Amino acid sequence: LIAKLPHVGTSIFTKMTTLANEEQALNLSQGFPDFETDPKLVQLVSAAMEKGHNQYAPMIGAQSLRETIVNKYKAVYAVDIDPTEELTVTAGGTQAIFTAIATVVSQGDEVIIFEPAYDSYAPTIELFGGKVVPVRLLAPDFQIDWDYVATLINEKTRLVIINNPNNPTGKVLGKEDLNKLGVLLAGTNTLLLSDEVYEHLVFDGVSPQSVLSIPSLRERSFVVASFGKLLHTTGWKIGYCVAPVLLMREFRKIHQFNVFSVNTPMQIAIAEYLRDIVYVESLAGFFAKKRDLLKNGLAPSRFKILPCEGTYFLNLDYSAISQEKEFDFACYLTKHHKIATIPLSAFYKQATDQQVLRVCFAKQDDTLLKAVAILNEI
Amino acid sequence: LIAKLPHVGTSIFTKMTTLANEEQALNLSQGFPDFETDPKLVQLVSAAMEKGHNQYAPMIGAQSLRETIVNKYKAVYAVDIDPTEELTVTAGGTQAIFTAIATVVSQGDEVIIFEPAYDSYAPTIELFGGKVVPVRLLAPDFQIDWDYVATLINEKTRLVIINNPNNPTGKVLGKEDLNKLGVLLAGTNTLLLSDEVYEHLVFDGVSPQSVLSIPSLRERSFVVASFGKLLHTTGWKIGYCVAPVLLMREFRKIHQFNVFSVNTPMQIAIAEYLRDIVYVESLAGFFAKKRDLLKNGLAPSRFKILPCEGTYFLNLDYSAISQEKEFDFACYLTKHHKIATIPLSAFYKQATDQQVLRVCFAKQDDTLLKAVAILNEI
Ligand SMILES: CSCCC(=O)C(=O)O
Ligand SMILES: CSCCC(=O)C(=O)O
Repeated sequence: LIAKLPHVGTSIFTKMTTLANEEQALNLSQGFPDFETDPKLVQLVSAAMEKGHNQYAPMIGAQSLRETIVNKYKAVYAVDIDPTEELTVTAGGTQAIFTAIATVVSQGDEVIIFEPAYDSYAPTIELFGGKVVPVRLLAPDFQIDWDYVATLINEKTRLVIINNPNNPTGKVLGKEDLNKLGVLLAGTNTLLLSDEVYEHLVFDGVSPQSVLSIPSLRERSFVVASFGKLLHTTGWKIGYCVAPVLLMREFRKIHQFNVFSVNTPMQIAIAEYLRDIVYVESLAGFFAKKRDLLKNGLAPSRFKILPCEGTYFLNLDYSAISQEKEFDFACYLTKHHKIATIPLSAFYKQATDQQVLRVCFAKQDDTLLKAVAILNEI
Repeated sequence: LIAKLPHVGTSIFTKMTTLANEEQALNLSQGFPDFETDPKLVQLVSAAMEKGHNQYAPMIGAQSLRETIVNKYKAVYAVDIDPTEELTVTAGGTQAIFTAIATVVSQGDEVIIFEPAYDSYAPTIELFGGKVVPVRLLAPDFQIDWDYVATLINEKTRLVIINNPNNPTGKVLGKEDLNKLGVLLAGTNTLLLSDEVYEHLVFDGVSPQSVLSIPSLRERSFVVASFGKLLHTTGWKIGYCVAPVLLMREFRKIHQFNVFSVNTPMQIAIAEYLRDIVYVESLAGFFAKKRDLLKNGLAPSRFKILPCEGTYFLNLDYSAISQEKEFDFACYLTKHHKIATIPLSAFYKQATDQQVLRVCFAKQDDTLLKAVAILNEI
């Protein structure tokens, strides 16, 4: 057998969650909430199943859910999306990302990604014969130098992938950054994939941004978002992709033969649940409080806390504590201090050790207080 | 934009279901049941959500569900599967097929498929640069000439895909066919993808067959199955893939970046539901009765009924009624007689018109009686 992805192993999220379970450690590694899903939403799923919504959904997604998504883009970004032509519901954000890359990346194409980057981008690009062109951003500020990015764009550059807010850094690209990217891509044949799965999780009074509000980006972008992070249901695996009609048509050709359609009762229930909410205003505040609880709690610790403007991840620099490599230190903490985190190096194609660990704060306050107690002892 | 799949349009299932809905026609086109899911199963999903099973499942699938699947292979085929190494839960059978093809097919590889074939095989093969080598089987007997197949196998033949029982023909390959295939592939580098999503739907006292019971096939096969057809839940999108460890390792590398994991509460509930059932003995009888209701009901009609040994599809030859092409005739029936079917030509890469329509009989008896009444008038 010729392995298509010889360098790929089991993802860091699986590794650390498995180790956390084995060690009965507090699991702040993989990004998922440990608190309850709204019982009202759960009841709506039950009702959808009882009403008989158990067979194939339409390939492009349940109509009511697509309407809900259209309402979100209108309410939050004042952008009009055509639910019939520009939108497809997917089996989570990751599947939307995979399918978007599959749609446009061919042998020899170059794809610019910004590291640290979500771990699915690079192997998916390589699976379709693309060449990953990583732009390495380093702790603590992770700034993108757009002038440098401009020098990387050539006629082979098929796609740029951004993730805003960024997992794992918690960095948020504002309008100014997006405008610069818009200018940079205007007139080129380069497309954009904007992974916006944490879109609502921006803190400190900053407004969510989507590349859809920038015309020169909208016309060339796949935008990916997900309900897992919005509704605390990462295990339901319902996401979506928005793109202009010509791109979306090609996306759907692949989507229909990849998963064909997506869980019906969950789609129906989410649409019903979000009918009148659209944009969960309080979500950012809810998570900002958790960030602060963790951040303030760790003030007496020996960790240096990196800035966090969005997502539900906080990064801790442990260089004052240990000179061990990130993966080794993360394993050590899991085994000996019973707390699991993610080494930042996992988000770089070529491992780069900066002595930083990512901690997920989408956890009950109790869990966070336990984490604080452990981390302050280290 | 360079379209990767220029020849692909919207799938026939979406087309015909959409037309059926527009025309308020009886929808016997796309394969899904119109009857209730067991309320006990629905309650188990509700219970799983209420118990908090709403976050990411393990990438390879919930442990309890993998154990259930292992039990099935033991009980039905007396085959031992390793739940940790040889099995991955997928977002439906189609995603398992897509990922298996992605795992092994590269530029220039040849893949043998038997037509009529499920419509996802060819475009997925082509997406990964493979060359489709179709073996055309024709109505009414759709026999495979294995000696002819032997002449097609060469060092470029990466994969053979079979679908047993076969959608759309309802044909079942018995032990003898599978043994011939085993002999044919032994000693070659050719792998097998066996789409067994209708495995339990074999009628008239015949036992289900899996290629896993044939050692020379098992060592080279991806076997795909699905709960949608077993539990009347095509919209829940839970399937799985079984393969030897070396193949499964590569499969998982792609699976983890395609969908990462699959709906958690549904996995937990299905495992619980099937804990003591394992093999739904009565399922074949249940569907055989429906086949007979349709078949016997149509005795006075002008359709010639083709043999149906399995699946939930019956094929009707309308050559005594019309000389129209299948797609045109299917549209005509939907619009003017308010009954939707699938043209058999949709399952051939190069459309071949044999004046045959596929009818889904996974429907309430009432629906089938209505269909009989309509079809007997044509
Ligand atoms: C798909 S598992 C990873 C979850 C996640 O987004 C993260 O932890 O970064
Ligand atoms: C995935 S939609 C098609 C359903 C089906 O298996 C069929 O109708 O053949």
